[in-house]
Amino acid sequence: MPRSTCHSVTVQFGDCDPAGIVFFPNFSRWMDAASLSFFMQCGIPPWRELVKTRGIVGTPLLEIHTRFVTAATYGQTLEIATHVEEWRAKVFVQLHRITRREADGRETLVCEGRETRAFVRRDPEDPDRLRAIPVPEDLRSLCQ
Amino acid sequence: MPRSTCHSVTVQFGDCDPAGIVFFPNFSRWMDAASLSFFMQCGIPPWRELVKTRGIVGTPLLEIHTRFVTAATYGQTLEIATHVEEWRAKVFVQLHRITRREADGRETLVCEGRETRAFVRRDPEDPDRLRAIPVPEDLRSLCQ
Amino acid sequence: MPRSTCHSVTVQFGDCDPAGIVFFPNFSRWMDAASLSFFMQCGIPPWRELVKTRGIVGTPLLEIHTRFVTAATYGQTLEIATHVEEWRAKVFVQLHRITRREADGRETLVCEGRETRAFVRRDPEDPDRLRAIPVPEDLRSLCQ
Amino acid sequence: MPRSTCHSVTVQFGDCDPAGIVFFPNFSRWMDAASLSFFMQCGIPPWRELVKTRGIVGTPLLEIHTRFVTAATYGQTLEIATHVEEWRAKVFVQLHRITRREADGRETLVCEGRETRAFVRRDPEDPDRLRAIPVPEDLRSLCQ
Repeated sequence: MPRSTCHSVTVQFGDCDPAGIVFFPNFSRWMDAASLSFFMQCGIPPWRELVKTRGIVGTPLLEIHTRFVTAATYGQTLEIATHVEEWRAKVFVQLHRITRREADGRETLVCEGRETRAFVRRDPEDPDRLRAIPVPEDLRSLCQ
Repeated sequence: MPRSTCHSVTVQFGDCDPAGIVFFPNFSRWMDAASLSFFMQCGIPPWRELVKTRGIVGTPLLEIHTRFVTAATYGQTLEIATHVEEWRAKVFVQLHRITRREADGRETLVCEGRETRAFVRRDPEDPDRLRAIPVPEDLRSLCQ
Repeated sequence: MPRSTCHSVTVQFGDCDPAGIVFFPNFSRWMDAASLSFFMQCGIPPWRELVKTRGIVGTPLLEIHTRFVTAATYGQTLEIATHVEEWRAKVFVQLHRITRREADGRETLVCEGRETRAFVRRDPEDPDRLRAIPVPEDLRSLCQ
Repeated sequence: MPRSTCHSVTVQFGDCDPAGIVFFPNFSRWMDAASLSFFMQCGIPPWRELVKTRGIVGTPLLEIHTRFVTAATYGQTLEIATHVEEWRAKVFVQLHRITRREADGRETLVCEGRETRAFVRRDPEDPDRLRAIPVPEDLRSLCQ
């Protein structure tokens, strides 16, 4: 079983659109927070430390794929369960399942997202460019 | 050829993260704006009118799939070309291509996203629930 | 002593700008969440209930005044202490103090904001317009 | 007469809250964009250039004060007129007036905000700290 972490979010009024439901880019925002929370719970230092010690700027996205199952609204608490589904040479796929606990105790799936990410450094010759690096073994082993 | 519309966005400082590049949920936000802009440019009234005349609350998402090709940063202008790639009975797929015009005149693909959406009404028996309806023929024909 | 509530926020990577510090509109977003959290902790139902039972849509802002003292960055947890500083006939002033607990145990003031708000209903003759109403006595007494 | 610039914003569906009106932190976001747009229209390079040539990271906020006059909703275009109201030794005050052109040609004031800002550099001894510097004369003269 791969390591899995949990990240909790309470939906705010301003997270919702005129239809009264979560404006969906907020789910992307929360999955990004869950992604970083996963790394921090696994013991990886924040990017602002890693950029100083190892030049790693973060794990930008190459691809996202999200399926929305049920709408959510403000006042509700969402749980995001995160694990790495697949490690490849230069990329990895993180899976986020966002669920809500109902009044009757059941757990409802709100949405599910896959993020393909890579660790990146700044290009030494053009610091405005970010370059994917092979997944660092030590960081990977912390996440398993 | 399906009808295609264009929506333009200038990236702001606050749209970028500590790595200096667009925080990716903003791409979802801009694709949503491009989706609505598509409908308005096709002559469909804003949702706040349609909800009064026909009960249509909007076109929430069932699924998104976005591939990120190049990073973007603030001060840059992005063009979003939008069309409907596929109409099914109850859903449709909108394709958004986000490009940037470079100083040398070339056009760079920044990212590309597919959104699966449905027209929804409130459930008459439980107004907190949204129900997908068959794609209205008249609205569809405006978009082709 | 007026009633005071606490609302906690963890700063996310995407909440920060290219300078690595919180993009300030997020402080406004968090103060809004703290404002609603205050009402809910005081026992006032969510706006989507109040709009059905009493027509109250929410408490939009008339004025905000925020003083920023120290920058904050991602990974930090902020505490927002909220109370109503002043009740007038048709408006009230909410004060939010955002602090951070340092590693050495000291509490640092990050920023402080005053929000002037009013309870509103939709205008019966033009439902697109929102109208301030006198502060409802029963809601006020819950907040004191 | 101080120099004044104009920045235009179209309100998006996702900028609005469940009451159907602009979620107010978006006004702060747009004023920040108008602030940067002011500097760029005055001929000041983007911060990512200035940080390389002169160490100037940007112009973070010390204080904001915004008065909301009329609600705005999606589909509307807002104009933000920006000028510097006051230059002091280490800070300056930018004024933003956000207006909307009505169907009958009248101009409505939506909100008005004052931002107190300072030019900052990173502290050479602690690069995580930002330090206000005296307003650079050459940058100031570009803005007048």
